[in-house]
Amino acid sequence: MKVRMADKVEQFRTVWMEGLTVKIINQVKLPYEFEILDLKNYKETGEAIRNMNIRGAGAIGAAAGYAVAQAALEAPSQSYDACLKYIEEAADYIKSTRPTAQNLFYAVDRVLGMARSVKSILGAKLSAKKVAQQIADEDANACKSIGEHGEPLIKDGFKILTHCNAGWLAFVDYGSAISPIYTAKEKGKNVFVYVGETRPRLQGASLTAWELSQEGIEHKVIADNMSGWLMQLGKVDMVIVGADRIAANGDVANKIGTYEKAVLAKVNKVPFYVAAPTSTFDISCKTGRDITIEERSEGEVLYIKGYCSKTKSVEEVRITPEGSHALNYAFDVTPAKCITGIITEKGIIVAKKKSIEALLK
Amino acid sequence: MKVRMADKVEQFRTVWMEGLTVKIINQVKLPYEFEILDLKNYKETGEAIRNMNIRGAGAIGAAAGYAVAQAALEAPSQSYDACLKYIEEAADYIKSTRPTAQNLFYAVDRVLGMARSVKSILGAKLSAKKVAQQIADEDANACKSIGEHGEPLIKDGFKILTHCNAGWLAFVDYGSAISPIYTAKEKGKNVFVYVGETRPRLQGASLTAWELSQEGIEHKVIADNMSGWLMQLGKVDMVIVGADRIAANGDVANKIGTYEKAVLAKVNKVPFYVAAPTSTFDISCKTGRDITIEERSEGEVLYIKGYCSKTKSVEEVRITPEGSHALNYAFDVTPAKCITGIITEKGIIVAKKKSIEALLK
Repeated sequence: MKVRMADKVEQFRTVWMEGLTVKIINQVKLPYEFEILDLKNYKETGEAIRNMNIRGAGAIGAAAGYAVAQAALEAPSQSYDACLKYIEEAADYIKSTRPTAQNLFYAVDRVLGMARSVKSILGAKLSAKKVAQQIADEDANACKSIGEHGEPLIKDGFKILTHCNAGWLAFVDYGSAISPIYTAKEKGKNVFVYVGETRPRLQGASLTAWELSQEGIEHKVIADNMSGWLMQLGKVDMVIVGADRIAANGDVANKIGTYEKAVLAKVNKVPFYVAAPTSTFDISCKTGRDITIEERSEGEVLYIKGYCSKTKSVEEVRITPEGSHALNYAFDVTPAKCITGIITEKGIIVAKKKSIEALLK
Repeated sequence: MKVRMADKVEQFRTVWMEGLTVKIINQVKLPYEFEILDLKNYKETGEAIRNMNIRGAGAIGAAAGYAVAQAALEAPSQSYDACLKYIEEAADYIKSTRPTAQNLFYAVDRVLGMARSVKSILGAKLSAKKVAQQIADEDANACKSIGEHGEPLIKDGFKILTHCNAGWLAFVDYGSAISPIYTAKEKGKNVFVYVGETRPRLQGASLTAWELSQEGIEHKVIADNMSGWLMQLGKVDMVIVGADRIAANGDVANKIGTYEKAVLAKVNKVPFYVAAPTSTFDISCKTGRDITIEERSEGEVLYIKGYCSKTKSVEEVRITPEGSHALNYAFDVTPAKCITGIITEKGIIVAKKKSIEALLK
């Protein structure tokens, strides 16, 4: 997707590979600075995943696949066993960087499996790189298809609310929730986006607002408290959010606050869509109750990071009295009954119209 | 109410008068520093209101009444006319400091009216001070009564969600939404408070968390996005919020986000109470649609203030990309049908049980 430089507009993916180097947009520096990180070996790529220089399900998966490919290309060429041992150790290390990221495990296992199945040193190296590239391309293509399936839902002039960052920075390209918006814009429709800032980590205010600025899409940031009032005023035509995990019954785990927007949308008769690749479905979870919700450090609520013009750098400030504590649920579960439809790369699942099982076949 | 000093606990009101001086807790410095401001004359008191060193309906009203009393005491004593002219000019100035604050107008007019009705210089001066004190005491007493009426709703062990700051810092003492919690605590009940941080201005994270700390009430701050999920998990027994204005039909204008909490409470069958003195009712507004909702500067969303340990002072940081814009509705309207009851100093109004008209008689 587009990034606006001082004098031109360039096309970027969130993560890609050039020779032995994995390149990523450094998301830790956004939205204050645009920086490409060159990750020279699998350990550097693993560290970048661990430090959240790259985040978002699809983007992490692609980076992890590339990291295993790096390990394969770096691996010693004396013997096949030594080569494979090196790749396997690398795979274990990469899995340890974000131990709850499903896409990471999927990508690592797929690249490693390919390296194992090709019983020659050169074959293992080349096929690992090829599969890693396939994983990245599949992610980008799935997101592009989500855009195409979701686009007809957007009418010219629509004002769309989104939450968190489910744009191209969270995937290899295009994004999930934002992809239909990009496609609508490409087709000449006027769209306006309300960007929920998404406390505590502010992914909306920082990442989504940055993405939309790069793509020239009109938007305004709102405090998370404002979405209900905008719906009551009739100023929201549609909500689109991403998903972290979708249960077999269509319940959706996503960034904390998603459930609130879904209930408010239902009460105010605003269509509420979830957009996610089918890889997000976890049919081992029958319902949302089977999904474990992560509680994170209270520091994310007690402190906020932002750019300080006095020190000319990003600073962390405490917003609460010394000694006060906070709760920090990272995700919530939205019941399927609050969801108008789930936009996937294979089509739109509408409750009671097309079953999840039928679509996943 | 209580303030914990290094070596002792002291009792304070939010605003009071000693001789010619109005004293206030400087809310701009909270929660990072506790400071009493000495306001030597009506102009200093007016400036403190304008700069939001004191905020909250009841607290502003009391401060404004005291400011007119200061003007009366400062006024020239050569002639009654010169004295009254001085007070009237001061009253105009004080009204200009927060031109949308109803309680401010009420207090200024009441003190000025008394000064006008007593046709002697000394009488005007003394009666102005007396009425200003009455206004402050009435506010504190109303809030104390709200606490007594609301307390029986709170069962031992309740976990209560509140939003914004409707505690004693917003009034002269006790507060509205928090007053029943203080009374319950006094009566030996265990209570726990979820403090919604209340973006954009974070009155919950800063002021409410500070108040509850001073009073030794167990609490945790949550991001505004988390209240719905806590309700879905069954972890919230009750919601109590304050009100900025209440229409004749019981619709409530309050801090942005209140409407969201009310809808989520209704959907999750959690009792949702509004606590406010009857002076908050504006029966000239038939319904919530007649209440004008203020839009404030986008800077409150784009920037956040907090204590920076690096610079050892309060800093403002930007959380959005340069050039992004924000919407900033300061209040919203909660329909009466989402409200379980309104706790006032005269009793609790429960929809369809006791009419607002009957209670206001």
